[in-house]
Amino acid sequence: MALISPISSPNGKTFNQKLFSRIRVVIESDVPHIYKLMQQLFVYHDITHLLKSNESSIASGLFNPKYPHLSPVTTLLIEVSANPFPSCPNDKTSSKEVDLNMPLIDEESEQFRVVKYDHVDDDDVFIAGYVMFYPCFSSFFENPVFHMENFFIRECYRKKGFGKWLFSTMASEAARMGFSSIDWYASDWNESALGFYKHMGATISDDFRVLSLAGKALEAFEDDSN
Amino acid sequence: MALISPISSPNGKTFNQKLFSRIRVVIESDVPHIYKLMQQLFVYHDITHLLKSNESSIASGLFNPKYPHLSPVTTLLIEVSANPFPSCPNDKTSSKEVDLNMPLIDEESEQFRVVKYDHVDDDDVFIAGYVMFYPCFSSFFENPVFHMENFFIRECYRKKGFGKWLFSTMASEAARMGFSSIDWYASDWNESALGFYKHMGATISDDFRVLSLAGKALEAFEDDSN
Repeated sequence: MALISPISSPNGKTFNQKLFSRIRVVIESDVPHIYKLMQQLFVYHDITHLLKSNESSIASGLFNPKYPHLSPVTTLLIEVSANPFPSCPNDKTSSKEVDLNMPLIDEESEQFRVVKYDHVDDDDVFIAGYVMFYPCFSSFFENPVFHMENFFIRECYRKKGFGKWLFSTMASEAARMGFSSIDWYASDWNESALGFYKHMGATISDDFRVLSLAGKALEAFEDDSN
Repeated sequence: MALISPISSPNGKTFNQKLFSRIRVVIESDVPHIYKLMQQLFVYHDITHLLKSNESSIASGLFNPKYPHLSPVTTLLIEVSANPFPSCPNDKTSSKEVDLNMPLIDEESEQFRVVKYDHVDDDDVFIAGYVMFYPCFSSFFENPVFHMENFFIRECYRKKGFGKWLFSTMASEAARMGFSSIDWYASDWNESALGFYKHMGATISDDFRVLSLAGKALEAFEDDSN
């Protein structure tokens, strides 16, 4: 039986049989990718009209001292490659190998190609998904909590265990650091996501509604003399 | 017609005709009061079993460098007194006078008596309510947002305009500082609170659910080897 050799699809990168992946912390050159992932997340939720952030505001929030009073936002990325990632003894990244039942085609691979920085043998490293979270004070608990702001796996990489791996990595970090909870919102209609989160151990509050005061309704208070 | 002179009810403080009030930022000696207000808030929501914070964790979250990575939490208090508050030209506190239609009895006044610090003419200053909020990164907006963690007016002080005043004070601050939004949760059953917030300009998201991973479900990830 001849092994199928890797092919480069004109429509993007094709992975045969094996996929190597790792989770690492975002660096500043990843910001354009984060913005594209965020755009896909908002498209997925059909709320693109609500996306008012941009590469510059993401960079400010994640790396820039423009808002020094903000808690640091942690963003973890999943990278994938057809080749193993170099292992470093002191590296806190976590990597794993995924056996594919059928070839996986990433049609948008070029948009998510990682700028080369340490993957010496091969430039073909792509971003498959991300999670973004930050620490908050909570009136419920003795210790701080994490708020999970975004969680997204690109479509072609779903149902391969990446979501579970990424979520678990964040949850392990929270548990080890003594955080009391991770809180987030999910869309009511998204049965698939709610099912996934329940499987991860989450509880869903039925009696909370999410409220916000934004745009002109908030601006109306600017000249409020009380 | 004889004026009714102020009476000191054995069941607490009684205010006749006029109430003087001001909003100020919390100081460390207020922490026991904040905890009592928080307990009342959790009783009001019938979720006292979820309250795991305490005076020490509140002090840590609000004042202590135990969690230097946390965004500063701002807490504003409403104080009330039968006498006017001294005015200071540089004071950023906001004060106002409320005409009462009928005497107001604060049966729990002793629990909420403010430790004397600048109200020279009279020791009878009591805390009527509070709001607690902190800045967050948001993937939705170009600028940071506020998360409102707690908002509470003690029962005997409701329907006097204090809630509107306290909420407006926070919203003015957010608008003036260029924050993009204030986000918070409210209980689905609390028609009175939802009506109040809508009146203040808030929008209620119907399709978001609030999820959390806490307690044993989170601890289970502590030894997770991914």
